[in-house]
Amino acid sequence: MTYCIALKLKQGIVFASDTRTNAGIDNVSCFKKLHHWQKQNDRVFILLSAGNLSITQSVVSLIEENINNNNSDENTTSLMTVPSLNRAARIIGDMIREVKKVDADELDQGQGFNASFIFGGQIGNAEPGLFQIYSEGNFIEATDDTPFFQIGEHKYGKPILDRICRPDLTLNEGVKLLLLSFDSTLRSNLSVGMPLDVLVYEKGSHDLTKEVRIEQDNKYFNKLSDGWSSVLCKSFSEVDNMEF
Amino acid sequence: MTYCIALKLKQGIVFASDTRTNAGIDNVSCFKKLHHWQKQNDRVFILLSAGNLSITQSVVSLIEENINNNNSDENTTSLMTVPSLNRAARIIGDMIREVKKVDADELDQGQGFNASFIFGGQIGNAEPGLFQIYSEGNFIEATDDTPFFQIGEHKYGKPILDRICRPDLTLNEGVKLLLLSFDSTLRSNLSVGMPLDVLVYEKGSHDLTKEVRIEQDNKYFNKLSDGWSSVLCKSFSEVDNMEF
Repeated sequence: MTYCIALKLKQGIVFASDTRTNAGIDNVSCFKKLHHWQKQNDRVFILLSAGNLSITQSVVSLIEENINNNNSDENTTSLMTVPSLNRAARIIGDMIREVKKVDADELDQGQGFNASFIFGGQIGNAEPGLFQIYSEGNFIEATDDTPFFQIGEHKYGKPILDRICRPDLTLNEGVKLLLLSFDSTLRSNLSVGMPLDVLVYEKGSHDLTKEVRIEQDNKYFNKLSDGWSSVLCKSFSEVDNMEF
Repeated sequence: MTYCIALKLKQGIVFASDTRTNAGIDNVSCFKKLHHWQKQNDRVFILLSAGNLSITQSVVSLIEENINNNNSDENTTSLMTVPSLNRAARIIGDMIREVKKVDADELDQGQGFNASFIFGGQIGNAEPGLFQIYSEGNFIEATDDTPFFQIGEHKYGKPILDRICRPDLTLNEGVKLLLLSFDSTLRSNLSVGMPLDVLVYEKGSHDLTKEVRIEQDNKYFNKLSDGWSSVLCKSFSEVDNMEF
């Protein structure tokens, strides 16, 4: 399993992913699932991936290839020159379909072709965008009504997003919310594991340097986790009981 | 889908279930999933069920039959005379296996034989007990380390249980916790639906009268749901942000 989330806020987009991959419960590894690319002062792309690692790595390789081969051409199939994020998402969808053609038949008669992606970024001064791309290559875009996407083990960490996520959270509040959602998930599903990768993209900055890896002994994360439990227990005792 | 929970506390056991059943998203009905039986001043049994309704109803019918046919015999296959809750759980396990013999082959080659139960109660002055019984008929018992069981759509409502559930909660606090866990689930999965059935069993009472049905317009539930969201939002803004 895997857990990845991204929130599209008014100030920008925050992304987070775990790093655990597993083939069965007794074969666990650590792989980065957060990737990004940029063209200085022009565009940034961030990709989170969940599902079969061989598929998601193949897609990332195709993206790297596309960027290396085409970064100076003016064509609509290069991520470095496409005019919109929507077109960029379509290119990634096409890459998933390309991998599917090669691998799907062998993967449990196509049923095992399991991969999903969260893709976001900004091109020029257009509004930043956030997409969820499915293993079929189609995609949807986040809006203010539902400003977040989750892939992988999404259920444990969803209630807190439902209650707190709003587009007008600050970027730092967004990070706090992602980490609380991760904390709920990490407690319940062993196939989601530390360290976590977090990236904060500030609208208009075209800057990808605000990235941090949160290890098991991260002081802030541990304080947040314990603090949140205390706050919940305290709030719980303050809310009225039901009268029978 | 379905969602049922029970918490075994020092003061007794609290049970809750939703009432929604569905065959596809466009065929939704309301069925009670909380059942109970008692022998005055001697024993009480409470059963929550999830899964294929034809299976769970068949099991409930077999329990009714067992109770009606044997309630005066002194034998070890009657729920009204067995000496322990563990033996009672075993009888229910046997009933599941009986239904399995009849129906499993026709249900998608046995893969569709999907049912699970939470079973609890008290016999005489022995300690109350809480069990989870699987579709295979085997079962496990709750202990102080994990004093709750969930069946059905359990993921959305688990984080709050993980953080707050302790055996020394009062029965009324237990009800509040169940309802908060339900609130998180109802917001995320349409196949879990109101009204809810809640039953509070106080240790040593052999009394099943503390049962309440919570309808859509229940004032307490709605106040709890809104109040909890406000409390979380307030607490969220008070917890420190991460420094980058």
